[in-house]
Amino acid sequence: MDGTTGITGIAGTTGVTGTPGTPGTPGTTHAQAKSRTRSWWGWGWADAHPDDDECLAMGALIPGTLARPLPVPRVRDLRIAGPAVEPPPSLAHLVTADPEDRAAHAMGKAYRDVVRALRGRPGRIPDLVARPTDDREVADLLDWAGERQVAVVPYGGGSSVTGGVEYRGDAHRAVLSLDLTAMGRVLEVDGTGRAARIQAGALGPGLEEQLRPHGLTLRHFPQSFEFSTLGGWLATRAGGHYATGRTHIDDFVQSMNVVTPAGTSASWRLPASGAGPSPDRLFLGSEGALGVITEAWVRLQRRPVHKASASVAFTDFHDALRAVRAVAQSDLSPANCRLLDSGEAALSGAAQDRSAVLVLGFESADAPVGDRLEQAVGLARAHGGRSSGQGGGQGGAYADAAVSAWRSAFLRMPYLRDGLARMGAVAETFETAATWDRIPGLIEAVRTEVGAAALKATGHPATVNCRLTHVYPDGAAPYFTVLAAGRPGDEVAVWDELKAVASEVLHRHRATVTHHHAVGRDHRRDYDRQRPDPFALALRAAKDALDPRGILNPGVLVG
Amino acid sequence: MDGTTGITGIAGTTGVTGTPGTPGTPGTTHAQAKSRTRSWWGWGWADAHPDDDECLAMGALIPGTLARPLPVPRVRDLRIAGPAVEPPPSLAHLVTADPEDRAAHAMGKAYRDVVRALRGRPGRIPDLVARPTDDREVADLLDWAGERQVAVVPYGGGSSVTGGVEYRGDAHRAVLSLDLTAMGRVLEVDGTGRAARIQAGALGPGLEEQLRPHGLTLRHFPQSFEFSTLGGWLATRAGGHYATGRTHIDDFVQSMNVVTPAGTSASWRLPASGAGPSPDRLFLGSEGALGVITEAWVRLQRRPVHKASASVAFTDFHDALRAVRAVAQSDLSPANCRLLDSGEAALSGAAQDRSAVLVLGFESADAPVGDRLEQAVGLARAHGGRSSGQGGGQGGAYADAAVSAWRSAFLRMPYLRDGLARMGAVAETFETAATWDRIPGLIEAVRTEVGAAALKATGHPATVNCRLTHVYPDGAAPYFTVLAAGRPGDEVAVWDELKAVASEVLHRHRATVTHHHAVGRDHRRDYDRQRPDPFALALRAAKDALDPRGILNPGVLVG
Repeated sequence: MDGTTGITGIAGTTGVTGTPGTPGTPGTTHAQAKSRTRSWWGWGWADAHPDDDECLAMGALIPGTLARPLPVPRVRDLRIAGPAVEPPPSLAHLVTADPEDRAAHAMGKAYRDVVRALRGRPGRIPDLVARPTDDREVADLLDWAGERQVAVVPYGGGSSVTGGVEYRGDAHRAVLSLDLTAMGRVLEVDGTGRAARIQAGALGPGLEEQLRPHGLTLRHFPQSFEFSTLGGWLATRAGGHYATGRTHIDDFVQSMNVVTPAGTSASWRLPASGAGPSPDRLFLGSEGALGVITEAWVRLQRRPVHKASASVAFTDFHDALRAVRAVAQSDLSPANCRLLDSGEAALSGAAQDRSAVLVLGFESADAPVGDRLEQAVGLARAHGGRSSGQGGGQGGAYADAAVSAWRSAFLRMPYLRDGLARMGAVAETFETAATWDRIPGLIEAVRTEVGAAALKATGHPATVNCRLTHVYPDGAAPYFTVLAAGRPGDEVAVWDELKAVASEVLHRHRATVTHHHAVGRDHRRDYDRQRPDPFALALRAAKDALDPRGILNPGVLVG
Repeated sequence: MDGTTGITGIAGTTGVTGTPGTPGTPGTTHAQAKSRTRSWWGWGWADAHPDDDECLAMGALIPGTLARPLPVPRVRDLRIAGPAVEPPPSLAHLVTADPEDRAAHAMGKAYRDVVRALRGRPGRIPDLVARPTDDREVADLLDWAGERQVAVVPYGGGSSVTGGVEYRGDAHRAVLSLDLTAMGRVLEVDGTGRAARIQAGALGPGLEEQLRPHGLTLRHFPQSFEFSTLGGWLATRAGGHYATGRTHIDDFVQSMNVVTPAGTSASWRLPASGAGPSPDRLFLGSEGALGVITEAWVRLQRRPVHKASASVAFTDFHDALRAVRAVAQSDLSPANCRLLDSGEAALSGAAQDRSAVLVLGFESADAPVGDRLEQAVGLARAHGGRSSGQGGGQGGAYADAAVSAWRSAFLRMPYLRDGLARMGAVAETFETAATWDRIPGLIEAVRTEVGAAALKATGHPATVNCRLTHVYPDGAAPYFTVLAAGRPGDEVAVWDELKAVASEVLHRHRATVTHHHAVGRDHRRDYDRQRPDPFALALRAAKDALDPRGILNPGVLVG
């Protein structure tokens, strides 16, 4: 008994109001977005959350959840005190002390954050929220904050799931949330070299919308696409929706502007360089601890016109692992190459027969991709896969219900998670990456040990599912979902217990603390354990040089 | 009159003794290499240098060169003093004070270095040369050097062309050249994940020879392949021979061990990670200033079995630029995609009719590549190219004399450069990278301004040729060759004048100070101008934290 159980078909229980944005063709345009309201406590749009009936339907799938959903929390119940500091008159027009705005900037959107909001115990509410419109204003705000010992927490779309945008502790006089979303424009497009200069506060849909008239795309589609920004992607080394090859945002950066308390770092726009350690690579992943990324030149691609996708089912998960490795090590370069284990396939509706499912997708702006898809499906079959193989379709594309079922579930999942949280369930996700030799043992250990820990922590059997979100020739990035009834009122403690067990398993298997969710505050302990000590010394020294007063996102990475 | 002239067919004037190694099938095996002698003053093998007659034949192509070649310099003429320090007995077995060995470690192999040796004025001769065999010994040597204020210059194959491996100044009590080539083994091979753990002192041919039984290759073939090491590639962010996609060594690193005076940094072996700024990326390109890279896990590939290559000639260089950009922006991913301007094509023997030549090559371990080659040739033709188009050949491969002529000249060029230096000629090369929008103007400005500067500096018209060594969707890396008669006895001054003019042109066009030759000491001034100031602060702080006594490769990057 490993303490696990199987929950299926959760994606089918709700008809979430409002269509979540679909990568490439966002359901909510930039213009529409302005008329919708973001949830201050949960994922995405306030009007897209499951209603009480939908929460009940989801909760019914998990034995031991609450009899009725926790109420949607209200900001006024938080009794937010006035700010501890006032901005100087010269910056006052950029700054607000509005309680709703401050509450919405108090935390990211981890399960841990959502349940804290549901229980009326959010993280520290920032004193002020500032929305600068250019580098000068960012620099002025940092100067002011440095003089007053005000902590500055850079804030993009607020979609952090690792405690990246909240303040913890009390070493500062006040906390300023530095919201970059007033800097959301595409400033220049170079059609010849396929690149654009884009402000860091551009949210995914707005960014793509501005590029579309040029026939170009950044093609970076994390699950948070609608609610995260270019600057957030850069600061956290985000992984895109695409599954092979260059997927981390790092590889798409030509140059960056970073405003630090010690001055603005502006690297040159280059296709490549060998001049010393890369300046950009120091700021990529710096999570706001070294400076505020304000804009970047990024590499773009032509919009793909040829697409084809298919899914392949496997009875044996280990066959599936061998198949996906063969595809990852081929020349084929699928745009999508995601392996869902049987639980994940059942949960998302991609398969209901205990099969694991490999979702394959190809795209090109140049030439039809049907041949590449057939070769990839052939490789998967050679490793024991069963292709649903309709074969035909327009332009050689496969039509496949499993692909669209999974895609739709992928985008709705964060909303469903919040619905489950309202039912008192634990709905945790975490991800990692490791070399292929470690992948089978790692996945098995997470299933067994996190499953057992969830049973122990909650008294209820848990579902522990896995998918590979990104694959490389030398390894893969597994993504785990844990679902169980919780311990009512004690959700944060349960989360912390599960996180500790999961982190220990990852550590033992030499798997990274994060492939694309960043370190934030939630992974800090394990990040410190994994990071080479001399590099920690160097990073600490760099931090002290660039942020001598220690105001930038205190507690993140160093300090 | 732009002060330029055209020199053709220089590659045909000598039958260099001994076959320079050919990437992938090195002419000199690891075992053979042990029986050959490296030149202490010039490129490569001592027995592979052009003899006096060959030097004269080359010199005859450049009006104004010497009537007879400068003699091959002898170490004994340098009257090398004894070392200023003695190693402690516990390390003495790793250390030599042999004058030949010390002289061979005094400089790299830039034209500037070669002429200094020819004129009997080499850089400062290191007091000692150490050859550690493991991390512990490297750390012990650093400890000893720190206590004695001895500068440590890490040394791999010694092929630096930017002053990366010499000591300048007098701030240290003595200089130790830390030669890593006794650490040249492949320690582990992971066939599943296609990776290997390799010691930093492995030279190209030995490294590939050890991988060959596993059917794997690092596939990193810089022009210096025979005479440079993995550690040198990592420390300088070397660019491979291959021309598109991932070519910098950076992208092939899974993890690295770096011994610093503050301890050893050992990153985890991962396919990808998003946990803070990449530790490896701080040490990649650190040129020995932050630590000594001692080993790395690197990503490998299966050895290609399908190959095809072709060349396409262009009357108009601007047509050729548009063609190569179209290929770089396609999905085709050629392994080789080099554009030679008319001068470079003539010099190497690839064309003698004032055509520019685009050399295309494709490789795969998976599938035949003839289709991809034909598509690339088609793109080039669509932009005005003339394919020599034999079409057929085995397995769809094109046979093309221009390809092999260029490849052979490429590997012989450094030997020929040294022969020209003996004739009193200036034979300088430098390289850069810029976005596509800047490429045409940059190339034109270098031709005009460096040509004029060479005429002014030497009184003789110069040949200024260009090739694109690496191309990217967003830009390209131009590589320039300057050939002219020199100012006898004054070669270093002429070099410095030309370098200053070239650097100014690059700077004005926002082109990097180096795409793959590193910064060293020769590019330091311009590196400092291009590097963002806050990044310089951070790097300086990192250096102080890791190397508090300032012994590591002083003068490089910071300090």
